Amino acid sequence: MADARHYHRLPSPLRMKRGGELLHAQLAYETWGTLSPHADNAVLILPGLSPGAHAASGPHDPSGGWWEAIIGPGKAIDTERWFVLCVNSLGSCKGSTGPASQDPATGKPYGIEFPELTLEDAANANQYLLDALGIARLACLVGCSMGGMTALAQMLLHPRCTRAHISISTAPQAQPFAIAIRSLQREAIRLDPNWNNGSYDDAHYPEAGMRIARKLGVITYRSALEWSGRFSRIRLDSDARDEDPFAFEFAVESYLEAHARRFVRSYDPNSYLYLSRASDWFDIAEYGGGSVAAGLKKICIEHALVIGVDTDILFPIEQQKAIADGLAEAGAQVDFVALDSPQGHDAFLVDTDRFGAEMRRFLDTLDTTGSVGV
Amino acid sequence: MADARHYHRLPSPLRMKRGGELLHAQLAYETWGTLSPHADNAVLILPGLSPGAHAASGPHDPSGGWWEAIIGPGKAIDTERWFVLCVNSLGSCKGSTGPASQDPATGKPYGIEFPELTLEDAANANQYLLDALGIARLACLVGCSMGGMTALAQMLLHPRCTRAHISISTAPQAQPFAIAIRSLQREAIRLDPNWNNGSYDDAHYPEAGMRIARKLGVITYRSALEWSGRFSRIRLDSDARDEDPFAFEFAVESYLEAHARRFVRSYDPNSYLYLSRASDWFDIAEYGGGSVAAGLKKICIEHALVIGVDTDILFPIEQQKAIADGLAEAGAQVDFVALDSPQGHDAFLVDTDRFGAEMRRFLDTLDTTGSVGV
Repeated sequence: MADARHYHRLPSPLRMKRGGELLHAQLAYETWGTLSPHADNAVLILPGLSPGAHAASGPHDPSGGWWEAIIGPGKAIDTERWFVLCVNSLGSCKGSTGPASQDPATGKPYGIEFPELTLEDAANANQYLLDALGIARLACLVGCSMGGMTALAQMLLHPRCTRAHISISTAPQAQPFAIAIRSLQREAIRLDPNWNNGSYDDAHYPEAGMRIARKLGVITYRSALEWSGRFSRIRLDSDARDEDPFAFEFAVESYLEAHARRFVRSYDPNSYLYLSRASDWFDIAEYGGGSVAAGLKKICIEHALVIGVDTDILFPIEQQKAIADGLAEAGAQVDFVALDSPQGHDAFLVDTDRFGAEMRRFLDTLDTTGSVGV
Repeated sequence: MADARHYHRLPSPLRMKRGGELLHAQLAYETWGTLSPHADNAVLILPGLSPGAHAASGPHDPSGGWWEAIIGPGKAIDTERWFVLCVNSLGSCKGSTGPASQDPATGKPYGIEFPELTLEDAANANQYLLDALGIARLACLVGCSMGGMTALAQMLLHPRCTRAHISISTAPQAQPFAIAIRSLQREAIRLDPNWNNGSYDDAHYPEAGMRIARKLGVITYRSALEWSGRFSRIRLDSDARDEDPFAFEFAVESYLEAHARRFVRSYDPNSYLYLSRASDWFDIAEYGGGSVAAGLKKICIEHALVIGVDTDILFPIEQQKAIADGLAEAGAQVDFVALDSPQGHDAFLVDTDRFGAEMRRFLDTLDTTGSVGV
């Protein structure tokens, strides 16, 4: 299978925020476009929880990426102008080191012996990659969902890492509704006997738990409004109920089932647990004496675009507004855009026309070094 | 333990909408106040999925009921004026016949041999009770959540059963977001190996599945807004994480846990499956040639109060608006009240001050026969 990923070796040991360390860890990433001689045209994209580094197609991997509509020649993130990178988060399972990776100490997968992971650790790992590539300062750091929290951490811990920032459908701290959802997803995985305290294999895989976790994810990634229009009360053309009185009957049920089926075996359950918990832990207020605004005020960037949608129940629009206000307070020139996309949290993956238009407009105002043009 | 429940024997066989029948079935109910000589002061309350008939305390059961703040002498539903009844839904497990009841044909619990249940069946059962009590016409029929759908069914199938109606946080049909949530709750129960195709006992009980189902319920019964104010990021004072790296850490997690613990062993999992599926099936449009409005137009009442809250994600306020519009179109005088209670779907159980005030005002306008006074 085509694979365009590069792998960057992180310092060993890699010391982590909560005291643990990793030996011989690596980050997987892909790139598109060409880095300028002054290394001043780089745009780093940090995805949400589940996608890997393959954000777009390219010569080494022509398959469509998770943000194919956004990244490419002449697209919103124009690879003829920008050197675009997308990183698979530390702790994930798409090429970067995570709980499914081999523990050098035992020769077996880490499982839950993987050290406690925070989004700050993921942010630091990203920064090591930029340093190694000679990118002293990004033109723009783009973070979506969980990646948006990692981006905030990276800008806070590495104040000069970027000139501009695009923050998409994310939050400055985890709030209790999102914590409750994620906690329940983790509980579903952990209650599956096959999870077995993190020791499973393909033959004994916590599939039931992962199905529930993923379906709950999809439910909270979309919106009631979208589904009412899309599925209404359409029924499946199936007679499965003859055999199973509780078989799926409505179109929305088979939609969730298809999503779960695509995901379940493609994502490591322990990675899910670690990144989910890291998202709960994230709180920019830790850096501001308990205040989100004070935490955000420590971020030094020139220009930001903050986008959210008002049907997002997982990362409500008020949280994007808080980011926009905080970055403005910190001295950045901030565009805040609340889209009325019906697709909820996932809108940035689906309503790419509107998200793309906003990003294109924003990126067009930056000169090649990420500053606002005159 | 004190018990104020009465039991009404339903006709045997009781024929059901989808073709099945029940032998020797019964309905559990409680009453408060005194039926007037003309039997014209009766108010019937239909609860949501989980509560039983014990809506309020009384001489035979002094323990607090699920709507204690609303029902009683001098309260919003004034038992000095009204003869108040509350019925445990057919199919539930709080005294009425349901899947946990003994099947006369086998002497064992029905389990999933219980016939397919609809809210129309529950509505018909309620009507048999009223007939037996000599209540030709209710002064007011009150339905909350699932009970609100049953109430719509009862008014549609028995057009002269009530003069007035209070509709609370309910829907004229199940929409795909609610179907998705309920489908996932049912899946969690059915995936629990202890569910065992509906054959379990106390020693082999699908506790894990029920915990997930209940927690998901609680998450969708409340609102992100309320939880942000109530729990913020408060952490538990616990060192459980020393032993279990994914132990609960946030206050919101222990709140969900406490809710699940109270519920899990007190509610029959098969009842949950049956009533949950019945809620998905409910669609007033079936009676209106595919149109909700046309279905509602068949309901003949004089006066209605329709209440919802705008933070309800399970039964969105637009659905209560559709009920109000449809009943008005049908000729009723309708008060529609959209409360901004932060508690989401559960607000009618929590924000009893505001719900009570609206109901009191509405009931005060009715004469003792449920008509609007002059």
